[in-house]
Amino acid sequence: MTAQRRGLGTNQEAVRRHNLGTMLRHVHGAGQVSRAQLTALMGLNRSTIADLVLELVSLGVVEQTVPTAARSGAGRPSAGVRLAEVGPYVIAVDLGVDRAVVARVALGGEVVERATAPIPSGGGEAWQVGSTVAGLIRRVVEGAPAAAPLLGVGISVPGLVRRSDGLVRLAPNLEWQDVSFGSIVLAALGVDVPVQLANDADLGALAEHRRGAGVGIDDLIYISGNVGVGAGVITGGVRLEGAGGYAGEVGHLPFAPEGRLCHCGNVGCWETEVGAHAIAEAIGCPESEVVTLGDVLDAYAGPPSALRATGTALGHGLAAIVNAFNPRLVVLGGYLSSLYALVRREVDDALAERALPAPLESVTLALPGLGSDSVLLGAAEIALEPLFADPVAALGTALVDVGGRLAG
Amino acid sequence: MTAQRRGLGTNQEAVRRHNLGTMLRHVHGAGQVSRAQLTALMGLNRSTIADLVLELVSLGVVEQTVPTAARSGAGRPSAGVRLAEVGPYVIAVDLGVDRAVVARVALGGEVVERATAPIPSGGGEAWQVGSTVAGLIRRVVEGAPAAAPLLGVGISVPGLVRRSDGLVRLAPNLEWQDVSFGSIVLAALGVDVPVQLANDADLGALAEHRRGAGVGIDDLIYISGNVGVGAGVITGGVRLEGAGGYAGEVGHLPFAPEGRLCHCGNVGCWETEVGAHAIAEAIGCPESEVVTLGDVLDAYAGPPSALRATGTALGHGLAAIVNAFNPRLVVLGGYLSSLYALVRREVDDALAERALPAPLESVTLALPGLGSDSVLLGAAEIALEPLFADPVAALGTALVDVGGRLAG
Ligand SMILES: [Zn+2]
Ligand SMILES: [Zn+2]
Repeated sequence: MTAQRRGLGTNQEAVRRHNLGTMLRHVHGAGQVSRAQLTALMGLNRSTIADLVLELVSLGVVEQTVPTAARSGAGRPSAGVRLAEVGPYVIAVDLGVDRAVVARVALGGEVVERATAPIPSGGGEAWQVGSTVAGLIRRVVEGAPAAAPLLGVGISVPGLVRRSDGLVRLAPNLEWQDVSFGSIVLAALGVDVPVQLANDADLGALAEHRRGAGVGIDDLIYISGNVGVGAGVITGGVRLEGAGGYAGEVGHLPFAPEGRLCHCGNVGCWETEVGAHAIAEAIGCPESEVVTLGDVLDAYAGPPSALRATGTALGHGLAAIVNAFNPRLVVLGGYLSSLYALVRREVDDALAERALPAPLESVTLALPGLGSDSVLLGAAEIALEPLFADPVAALGTALVDVGGRLAG
Repeated sequence: MTAQRRGLGTNQEAVRRHNLGTMLRHVHGAGQVSRAQLTALMGLNRSTIADLVLELVSLGVVEQTVPTAARSGAGRPSAGVRLAEVGPYVIAVDLGVDRAVVARVALGGEVVERATAPIPSGGGEAWQVGSTVAGLIRRVVEGAPAAAPLLGVGISVPGLVRRSDGLVRLAPNLEWQDVSFGSIVLAALGVDVPVQLANDADLGALAEHRRGAGVGIDDLIYISGNVGVGAGVITGGVRLEGAGGYAGEVGHLPFAPEGRLCHCGNVGCWETEVGAHAIAEAIGCPESEVVTLGDVLDAYAGPPSALRATGTALGHGLAAIVNAFNPRLVVLGGYLSSLYALVRREVDDALAERALPAPLESVTLALPGLGSDSVLLGAAEIALEPLFADPVAALGTALVDVGGRLAG
């Protein structure tokens, strides 16, 4: 539906598309919304809302719902909107250091299909990992309805991702440097769809803010424990990006001058005290199981004392983060959620010991509301963003019959 | 000028006041602006610009300028606007740990009058300091034209200031806790004007962003060296506040587990390595001169080697800050600018050693563009904010003949 066809000026058309996107974001968030709620949420009159609903229906992304009660009389339930049965979807990729998880995620945030494969320890060549990920994508789109449009791919990377173009500048535990992983995956797939990459902790923060433990909390930090440790920071409701998109690299705080050597080349970074290798050493977990440390900790039956120093180091580093960013909520993701369950008291005490009273009194530590799916769902969210910015444009470039195309 | 008088709806009036404020912000920033520039900057047509200029003239805050060249013919210079000769002003207060600096600052950012007084080491009772500050305010307003309106007072505090109400939660080097210093100053003055308080580093960042080394740079950090060490962070052009307004407390990064005791009660905070007391100890400066460490360092003629370890510790902590916030620019304020001049190589090397390559490659360390006035001018900026939000309202509550009132 172009501006010409509608006879609208480009400005009016831009406003209309913005409103369509905003409405869709509400439906995405809630699954089902009444027209009365949309009128209130969007501050538009009923006839404009009705027009927008009709256009979203004609775009195939929502369906109208009819109230079940009688439709006349005072206080009658308002007709509403819900997600279309066969609506658009995205591919979300959570690249870990030992495995890739790929999901088909519908508008609305539901994981419809999921596939996982190991990747070589140390990451291996990026093209091999890309080929593995492409295989998983093929698997999860196989069962997608042919009419359902694929909007794009969102990929989480355990490393530093350049905001301007998604280049992976550094993924230490994959041993990647300056890898254009988005292009590699697309080449392996043989199709051209929009692809977005971002840092795992940033995506964990995004998803927890939108759908998890941080709904309604505008100053929150997600700490990813994924062999290394990093932070995704949301401040004032907005992602803290920094100049290039690299903000939140808290794993390399100088912490223990007499400590262990870090992969970054320095001695005693915080990560060398609370990273997976340090914890594995503390509990005598073999090196080969470090990448699945969360599972190891969940099953840990050894003496809690073995982890006390780690808990204290975690709390002291969190204090530095609380002092620096003054968050309302800190979500401990990845293996850190398993660790926190074991040494909660040590972490809490150490945080209280080192954080300044003013930022300490308003902060809460929490486990992820989305369990181990925070990062995966964050990857889905970034792939959905273009849809909310301009549904008409995003659906115009979406691919249909993806299962058929990728199989053929 | 009320909405009724103009016969405008309240919405139109709100837009008009917003436009008046925006225009005034441009004149404040540049001192003098042509109508053609205003038209381009504000995206409004010439007759709207002309109306707004007339209203600002009638409010007494700007004057019209007439081009000196002939007024007809192609390419004639555009008439313009400059700050009024007798325009509104604010009081800026930079509360240090050993002295208070108070300035009368005109719209446009010029320090017109300035007065300084020592405050007792350790801060002394807040009411005594408030009385000293009130005395300095009396001095700097004495010579103000009776017709010039005082818009308000902006106060910088070396400590944690609650955003919601300006309460000083903690100013360690003043030994203050939960002090309502704004009310104390107003009580000592005996007049009621708007008063804003903020943290010194936050105000340094604000002023350097608007008028100093950081103009046009939207990701910058100002590190204050004011006995203790703190950071003011601007990210994406906006101040990083955190949940309560306390973000940027980087002085207490756990840094040297075997190090010195910090006033926060912990051992080995970064501040214990790069704070004024540590530096004084390194160069054998007597304790009584710690509060003027910047001057001491500027005059330092001892062996540079005495400061090498401090320079390295500064660089290592800055690396943590660069990794965490990914700034484009880090401005070293207070005594840190004097220190940097002495051990620049050590600082640069240590930063390069510990910062991750991606955030490191886009960051620059710099001295303040506003010299030692960054914080003072930042205090002026927050006192001016209400004027830019709504000039009509701000001028409506401004005080005239302040010199007379305060003397009487
Ligand atoms: Zn490191
Ligand atoms: Zn401390």
